Amino acid sequence: MKIAITPGEPAGIGPDICVALAQKSWPADLVFVCDPEVLLKRAESLGILLKVEIYSPGDDSPPHTRQPGSALVLPVSCGAPVTPGELNPANSQYVLNTLRRAITGCLQREFDAMVTAPVHKGVINDAGVAFSGHTEYLQQLSNSSQVVMMLASDAMKVALVTTHLPLSQVARSITDERLERVITVLHKDLRYKFGIADPRIIVAGLNPHAGEGGHMGREEIDIIQPALERLRGQGINLIGPLPADTLFTPKVLETGDAVLAMYHDQGLPVLKYQGFGRAANITLGLPFIRTSVDHGAALDLAGTGKADGGSLETALEYAINMVERSRGSIHGKA
Amino acid sequence: MKIAITPGEPAGIGPDICVALAQKSWPADLVFVCDPEVLLKRAESLGILLKVEIYSPGDDSPPHTRQPGSALVLPVSCGAPVTPGELNPANSQYVLNTLRRAITGCLQREFDAMVTAPVHKGVINDAGVAFSGHTEYLQQLSNSSQVVMMLASDAMKVALVTTHLPLSQVARSITDERLERVITVLHKDLRYKFGIADPRIIVAGLNPHAGEGGHMGREEIDIIQPALERLRGQGINLIGPLPADTLFTPKVLETGDAVLAMYHDQGLPVLKYQGFGRAANITLGLPFIRTSVDHGAALDLAGTGKADGGSLETALEYAINMVERSRGSIHGKA
Repeated sequence: MKIAITPGEPAGIGPDICVALAQKSWPADLVFVCDPEVLLKRAESLGILLKVEIYSPGDDSPPHTRQPGSALVLPVSCGAPVTPGELNPANSQYVLNTLRRAITGCLQREFDAMVTAPVHKGVINDAGVAFSGHTEYLQQLSNSSQVVMMLASDAMKVALVTTHLPLSQVARSITDERLERVITVLHKDLRYKFGIADPRIIVAGLNPHAGEGGHMGREEIDIIQPALERLRGQGINLIGPLPADTLFTPKVLETGDAVLAMYHDQGLPVLKYQGFGRAANITLGLPFIRTSVDHGAALDLAGTGKADGGSLETALEYAINMVERSRGSIHGKA
Repeated sequence: MKIAITPGEPAGIGPDICVALAQKSWPADLVFVCDPEVLLKRAESLGILLKVEIYSPGDDSPPHTRQPGSALVLPVSCGAPVTPGELNPANSQYVLNTLRRAITGCLQREFDAMVTAPVHKGVINDAGVAFSGHTEYLQQLSNSSQVVMMLASDAMKVALVTTHLPLSQVARSITDERLERVITVLHKDLRYKFGIADPRIIVAGLNPHAGEGGHMGREEIDIIQPALERLRGQGINLIGPLPADTLFTPKVLETGDAVLAMYHDQGLPVLKYQGFGRAANITLGLPFIRTSVDHGAALDLAGTGKADGGSLETALEYAINMVERSRGSIHGKA
């Protein structure tokens, strides 16, 4: 199994946590898509010994069995010298080049999955490139009609119907069409990427107490319940809509395989509290497996040795598990 | 210290968890405000031995040192026979009478605090009485201009700017005036009821990532930040507005004494996940201390022995601690 890793913004902690990742042994070949110098210099400033080997695409056998302390690198040239903590728009194209190369490799099945360290949206936009985030970029380059953001920890998976919207726009964005698109993607990917034959999805209501019979909002009655009912008719196992404040308790969570929250701050606080720095961001709806850290580039920590690699490790663990499960899943038989 | 306990809806689990409460020993005199027959019959159907003593208001010394298994009851007559699990509008006035008696006792300092078990809003309304909940009833009877709902577990306290509103109305309800009223009450009660001399309040943003500099909503910039700035000028220690998804992590939580969430499902899922059945509901802004369970009347569990009294115990523990701290607090010196 080959997994592409993009270290993201070179002035952030991405290179730090990639160097740390290469110190461990993993049941997969990790291919770091980046400038080898960026990793080597960051390792040096962290006082970590790192050996770099250059990846060659055709070289499939014998498999690269990496030793801890050595990184297999698919080289992409950086535009300008990198100083940890200092953003430089001259390197924005480089960051996009690493992503593009990893995406192409995933689309062509050269890689089984890609795992991304954080980019910095601002500096890419400062370089004159409209860029609203990894997820949108991946969606565009892979021609995917609907992607779904899922955060996962060891104890729960939470997918979102809406993501980075102002709260004032959330209620009107919960439409029948969006619910159908999101639930269809979530259900399909739980089957094909997580290998769950008949996934059970716990759906949160939009309003407090899921509207309490219409007393605190009617979206559950007018939109969510009818949409769920129709999707149940298509054979999708859906639980809810349930009140969000009591949904995230072990007794309820164990009745499902994933939670679908209606919006960002309804689903993510509890996941991040529980996950405690070890949550991964998973993009569903793409034609390949992609996981990511759940944090930003943390410029102030770059090169200091204080970056926490827990989320990148979790993202990699999820990617490896998903590759294994998708191979053994119903997908293979389809 | 005397604490009034109202068992709430007699057909629900309130009497069950009150009977259980009386089996333990507490560092306070508990005065159950209810029909003694309701407690005795529920104890009987649960197979628990209970002895009832009738409370007499003047009898202040020697203090009532209760034995576990005995309940001190301030009698209020029930309107009709009670069958566990079966609502009866003929008993709605009785439920309100118990609340009214406890409130009067708190206002007159006969009781140091009141702790409430769940009522059933629907059956009170069915009896022809407009009733939207304990909190509103308490606010009205005590002539309080602004009350604030706080949920508390052993690890965190979360207060809410808005509570039981449809999500579509939340954004427009976050006004300068409301923030000032709510934060003023929260700050005052953290001082006088929790005995925290200079409370630090962590304030969540309204939008995902607290608006991310205006990219995902402007309420933080236009409303919340200016309101916090003005209140800081009045000497209130405020942290934020912070993104809600990363706020509820131990590293951030330890920087404050309470969290102020903008709305119900932003603050409560994480608290209830963490609290695991042991969270209490605390009403701030009243001229006395009031705590409550965080769950409903659970009609289906009444009389079965399966009711979980954890939340009522937590509510009582909070009330006892708050009485102690308010006595020793700056309140006493004011």
